[in-house]
Amino acid sequence: MTNQKLTTLTHWLTEQQLSGAILTNFHTVAYLSGFTSDPIERVLALVVFPDHAPFLFGPALEVNSMQASGWPYPAYGYDDQENPWAKLAQHIKKDAHGTAFAIEADNLTMARYQALQSAFPEATFNADITDKINTMRLIKTSDEIQHMLAAGRDADRALAIGFDALATGVTELGVAAQLEYELKRTGVPAMSFDTLVQFGAHAADPHGATSSRQLNPGEMALFDLGTMTEGYASDATRTVAFGKISDKAQDIYAVTLEAQLAAQSQAKIGMTAGELDAIARNIITKAGYGDYFVHRLGHGLGASVHEFPSIMAGSDLVLQAGMVFSIEPGIYLPDVAGVRIEDSGYMTTDGFIPFTQTPKTLQQF
Amino acid sequence: MTNQKLTTLTHWLTEQQLSGAILTNFHTVAYLSGFTSDPIERVLALVVFPDHAPFLFGPALEVNSMQASGWPYPAYGYDDQENPWAKLAQHIKKDAHGTAFAIEADNLTMARYQALQSAFPEATFNADITDKINTMRLIKTSDEIQHMLAAGRDADRALAIGFDALATGVTELGVAAQLEYELKRTGVPAMSFDTLVQFGAHAADPHGATSSRQLNPGEMALFDLGTMTEGYASDATRTVAFGKISDKAQDIYAVTLEAQLAAQSQAKIGMTAGELDAIARNIITKAGYGDYFVHRLGHGLGASVHEFPSIMAGSDLVLQAGMVFSIEPGIYLPDVAGVRIEDSGYMTTDGFIPFTQTPKTLQQF
Repeated sequence: MTNQKLTTLTHWLTEQQLSGAILTNFHTVAYLSGFTSDPIERVLALVVFPDHAPFLFGPALEVNSMQASGWPYPAYGYDDQENPWAKLAQHIKKDAHGTAFAIEADNLTMARYQALQSAFPEATFNADITDKINTMRLIKTSDEIQHMLAAGRDADRALAIGFDALATGVTELGVAAQLEYELKRTGVPAMSFDTLVQFGAHAADPHGATSSRQLNPGEMALFDLGTMTEGYASDATRTVAFGKISDKAQDIYAVTLEAQLAAQSQAKIGMTAGELDAIARNIITKAGYGDYFVHRLGHGLGASVHEFPSIMAGSDLVLQAGMVFSIEPGIYLPDVAGVRIEDSGYMTTDGFIPFTQTPKTLQQF
Repeated sequence: MTNQKLTTLTHWLTEQQLSGAILTNFHTVAYLSGFTSDPIERVLALVVFPDHAPFLFGPALEVNSMQASGWPYPAYGYDDQENPWAKLAQHIKKDAHGTAFAIEADNLTMARYQALQSAFPEATFNADITDKINTMRLIKTSDEIQHMLAAGRDADRALAIGFDALATGVTELGVAAQLEYELKRTGVPAMSFDTLVQFGAHAADPHGATSSRQLNPGEMALFDLGTMTEGYASDATRTVAFGKISDKAQDIYAVTLEAQLAAQSQAKIGMTAGELDAIARNIITKAGYGDYFVHRLGHGLGASVHEFPSIMAGSDLVLQAGMVFSIEPGIYLPDVAGVRIEDSGYMTTDGFIPFTQTPKTLQQF
């Protein structure tokens, strides 16, 4: 599969008459090479040529891991006291025929671009390979879908653990910690993002953080979480009742659920992302809560938890088989309650198949 | 304190004859505004002017949080379907006198730079404010040092929890998960990075990940961990023995410890970062393990776990009072064992004061 992806890139470079591509987004590097590492502030790059074997380049202390990962081509390292861009440029000059390169403009910072240009003054970096990579990553292979189904099963398990932990007086942070502990203890290597747990009116802040707030009877609990399973991210949200909740909260829940189910069941190949967003948004707007659904309907995911495409108003991206994204409408009524319901899944000729199976009808604990 | 920092920037902008600075690194935004949020792929910016009140700009759904954080100046939002750069440019044009702006070149991607330039064609973004921000962040205030001392106490607690969890057959992931659970349950909001636990020869891979490897008697266990406490990162490493370890492992430990203690006790104001690196490196090299100490001696930390400065060979950065960094020599002998010992701390006229107090003489469990 890796070779197939690299071959696709090689053809693209030939078509574009480019001498090579310098890929610096570690998610892209993982996707194309199979070697996963977040270099933090160090440099990790995969360089692909139209007419020469590719190579990996990164911190000297990662070269063993690159080779152990099964990467069959050269892996070069640099030491902390070396200028990584000068060393990278040396390796590129050795292999490249020509001086016109593509970069990832959505990842390469101005400072890195300037350092690369200084180290390699005769080269140009005017081509942006971001769209090509996004397009490749947009349509998942059947192997990738299998990994994401496995990740979805872990997310279902995580939600069940979280629901079990609900009790009067527990804190959001305590529940999140218990849930992450149980997952990691049973082999999930990492969460795809910090688990969000919000109780009661706190959930009305759709991007508030998990806090020390305690749970009271009659409140709802919102869980937004994901795992990294076999190199792929899951992402799911459920909002459940702890004890008997108010009529207003029940109403918000019912409207959100209707919007989520409508979008999920009506998603069809050939529809645009904007049209899908509108299906959910219209239901919420008609119910009078339009001003309280303050974010897009969903986002792509795969080897990372937020990637292309964005499912939002105005997008004319056409849904195709193999696309993976979330459908996550929400209503956030300040000082009252917040509800979000989210499944991630993939498009098929039969519609949208979710990765998560946790029930969405209102559950009471 | 926030106002003091903003005033410093305002003066700098005046000196540099710039019309404003557009800060997009969320760590910088947190440092200067007190509002902490990782916008992931969305846009968060703080714009500072020489002659006008600053403003925060970010996703619409975060505007409430910006205001709730105590930020006393305007906070503007954009919706997902809007072009954030166009909206940001509108707000800047309203307040700015002139068109020469500073950006953070180590954060702004090529794609974002191009989007900003398109939205604001009459402006130039040639000034880089990165060094100024790094210099400001480099010397910590006494409040920041207090936060980091508190973070260090949490790191000590984390290490103690980790040591307690060691038992024949436990996995690296299981120990890491238990440790993170105990911390989060007791109010630590987040780790500053994914906890690294490595047993036996696995620790010889200095950037390997926490895995399902099990612990056997006679092996060492390496813990590299940190917490986010009061908005500041801790970072500490200890390597301990589980049962009786080999003479070779003991030797590696003794050399690493000697190097760490020497660097820590000899660190002095006026010395360069390169000289400090050499103190530890020379000890390890003389003992014959120079080839197995494959990384720099340390790195700065503060509101983020990796920041300026780098304590490495060749650096002529002069150590000053208030600088915060790690001292973390390591020896990684493939297929045998890996040892790293790390304290983070701050420079004073009396030398280096560590944030962590966990003993460094070889502990056996």
